[in-house]
Amino acid sequence: VKLPKSFYADGVHCGIAKNKKKKDIAIFYSGRDCAAAGIFTRNLVKAAPVLVSRANLAKSAGAIRAIVANSGCANACTGEKGMSHVYATTGFVGARLGINDFNVLVASTGVIGVELPVLKVEDGVKRLSAMVMAGKSSPNAAVEAIMTTDTFQKQACREVVIGGKRARIWGCAKGAGMIHPDMATLLSFVLTDAAITPGVLKTALKPAADVSFNRVTVDGDTSTNDSLIALANGAAGNKKITAPSGADYRKFAAALSSVCRDLAVMVAADGEGATKLIRVYVGSARSAADAKKAAAAVATSPLVKTAAFGNDPNWGRVIAAAGRSGAEFDPGRVDISINGTTVARNGEAVPFSESALKRSMTRKELKINIELNSGNASAEYYTCDFSFDYVKINASYRT
Amino acid sequence: VKLPKSFYADGVHCGIAKNKKKKDIAIFYSGRDCAAAGIFTRNLVKAAPVLVSRANLAKSAGAIRAIVANSGCANACTGEKGMSHVYATTGFVGARLGINDFNVLVASTGVIGVELPVLKVEDGVKRLSAMVMAGKSSPNAAVEAIMTTDTFQKQACREVVIGGKRARIWGCAKGAGMIHPDMATLLSFVLTDAAITPGVLKTALKPAADVSFNRVTVDGDTSTNDSLIALANGAAGNKKITAPSGADYRKFAAALSSVCRDLAVMVAADGEGATKLIRVYVGSARSAADAKKAAAAVATSPLVKTAAFGNDPNWGRVIAAAGRSGAEFDPGRVDISINGTTVARNGEAVPFSESALKRSMTRKELKINIELNSGNASAEYYTCDFSFDYVKINASYRT
Repeated sequence: VKLPKSFYADGVHCGIAKNKKKKDIAIFYSGRDCAAAGIFTRNLVKAAPVLVSRANLAKSAGAIRAIVANSGCANACTGEKGMSHVYATTGFVGARLGINDFNVLVASTGVIGVELPVLKVEDGVKRLSAMVMAGKSSPNAAVEAIMTTDTFQKQACREVVIGGKRARIWGCAKGAGMIHPDMATLLSFVLTDAAITPGVLKTALKPAADVSFNRVTVDGDTSTNDSLIALANGAAGNKKITAPSGADYRKFAAALSSVCRDLAVMVAADGEGATKLIRVYVGSARSAADAKKAAAAVATSPLVKTAAFGNDPNWGRVIAAAGRSGAEFDPGRVDISINGTTVARNGEAVPFSESALKRSMTRKELKINIELNSGNASAEYYTCDFSFDYVKINASYRT
Repeated sequence: VKLPKSFYADGVHCGIAKNKKKKDIAIFYSGRDCAAAGIFTRNLVKAAPVLVSRANLAKSAGAIRAIVANSGCANACTGEKGMSHVYATTGFVGARLGINDFNVLVASTGVIGVELPVLKVEDGVKRLSAMVMAGKSSPNAAVEAIMTTDTFQKQACREVVIGGKRARIWGCAKGAGMIHPDMATLLSFVLTDAAITPGVLKTALKPAADVSFNRVTVDGDTSTNDSLIALANGAAGNKKITAPSGADYRKFAAALSSVCRDLAVMVAADGEGATKLIRVYVGSARSAADAKKAAAAVATSPLVKTAAFGNDPNWGRVIAAAGRSGAEFDPGRVDISINGTTVARNGEAVPFSESALKRSMTRKELKINIELNSGNASAEYYTCDFSFDYVKINASYRT
């Protein structure tokens, strides 16, 4: 794994996690000022780090230098004390790295309503700052440190040539639970050495989120801590992108979307207890909004997701979920296929080989296609099946 | 169990269910013309029996004589053939009972996309018609016949004195899966011998549904077949209620709401795989709409429901669900209690005995109270926990 130029990342165990082998705090550091953009949870209940990061972005979107992220504690519903713990964290980082407090962003994930053990964070920041100042970098360690119930690391990367200069866009995400638009993931950080203004970066980040993290659902719950943060430090040396138009912008925006989509698909595939990724595609809808509504309802339905776990091609649940989604269509024109096998045409059953389809459904990826046959719009949604392990993981997450 | 006067109900096995011991078709018959009202699924995908029953109610809401209901087949997504199977059913009933086809209502529950085995239905109708014509009545057999994954029968009853006459309101419901507003239950039939006009009965039924079936969620999925039907045959001999006002109306409406709420709570308690009933109460909200939104989000959250299964007082998930509900409130003023124990005050943790609370959470009923402290409105919602058995039941329901 190679980060974009002049970025450094690392992770250590500082004691927030009970398991001493689990890294629980990470730093993402840039040697140069970064243009920065963020998209945060729309939950009314916002964690302290979300509030502070949003304020710091508003204050200095052109001069962000570091993100500090921890797992094991969400620092949400922690009141004034929670806020002061975030200010303490940005203070530690600022002092160690010799930068302003408000040039630091903070993200947390873990249990809600528990105080951040700020002295452990201080220790972690001290060690991590020393590491990145010495030029050390281990993206894998950083990504491990933000994992909670994730079973694998989520990283994605694209290279893109902008005005003759090769720029790199690297991203990571942590997902697994409390995953639903908007935002769809708990934490994601995207780092690039492309030169771009903060405003244009924000403009590019929004549609990237819309086709990626805002198309993922694991359990329908939006978190209090969702944060997608992009940093661009300009070390690639390209002519700075200053407007959301032109070939350079389009190339950059497309690559950014690809990185986000790769991460989003990984988040879906690694949903808590998941045994398979489910891609729900809704085609020939009257409008993009209708397509998205229908796809979201199917992808969120516990009945569809448990049937997927059981390799049961229960298309009745698929059409029923689309029917309650609010999307407008004629149920008598709907075609449904599962893994390429047509199971319903014009809203009614068609014969298919049950045993062959069940066998194909045991694969790690399931594709549900719904053609509404009422227009030209489409949307894809990413989710996972609902297994015994989802219940097992979540019945005793806190204790 | 005693039905209201001049009502007869029974159930038999006619062969729709594979298990020969499982009754699968029921009749609810009145010796006199009934005022009738119905509330049906808002799913865009409506089963054939829903379409026909709605049409028959529009045509003859003052002269309904029978409801025929089957389990094991939803007769949804079955196209023209499905419609003709319902017409055949009303035809069989009309011929056997000597009444008009359009004075018969039909309700079905079971797998979507499967054809109704209409000759088996014919056989069932023949036997059931003979039974009720001979004055036989077994409400328990009728209720058993509409059960699917229900683990117990759901019946409720109230007596009310209207203008010196004793009237009876009896209801039954079948629930378990695909339970979510609106409507919240698959099938519910309410029979009364009170005398009331069809229009006033409909006026009373709507608020009754709003505080009962529309406050229940098991899995967030609205069915294609949801039907709540009320029949009033006037055999109690009271002065007919002809306006939605006055003491008689209020007594009747209150008793009707009580019957529906009893049934709704039973539906929640018997949700698929449920080990306990959960009552989610949201108080001191800015508006009734806000209270309902917040209660619905908490009651629907898989994370809250799995935590309930694990007896984990994870109040962070409760406040997070309320926060994403769209209700407006100040998270810093929220108080939360679980089974009477305060776990959060002003949006932050307060100390409590973890072991005592966990012990109380193992009971069959769990009460989550959320005070938003921002107004005077409140709402209650009924749901159940999310267990391993929910997944087990739904992973292979169809096959």
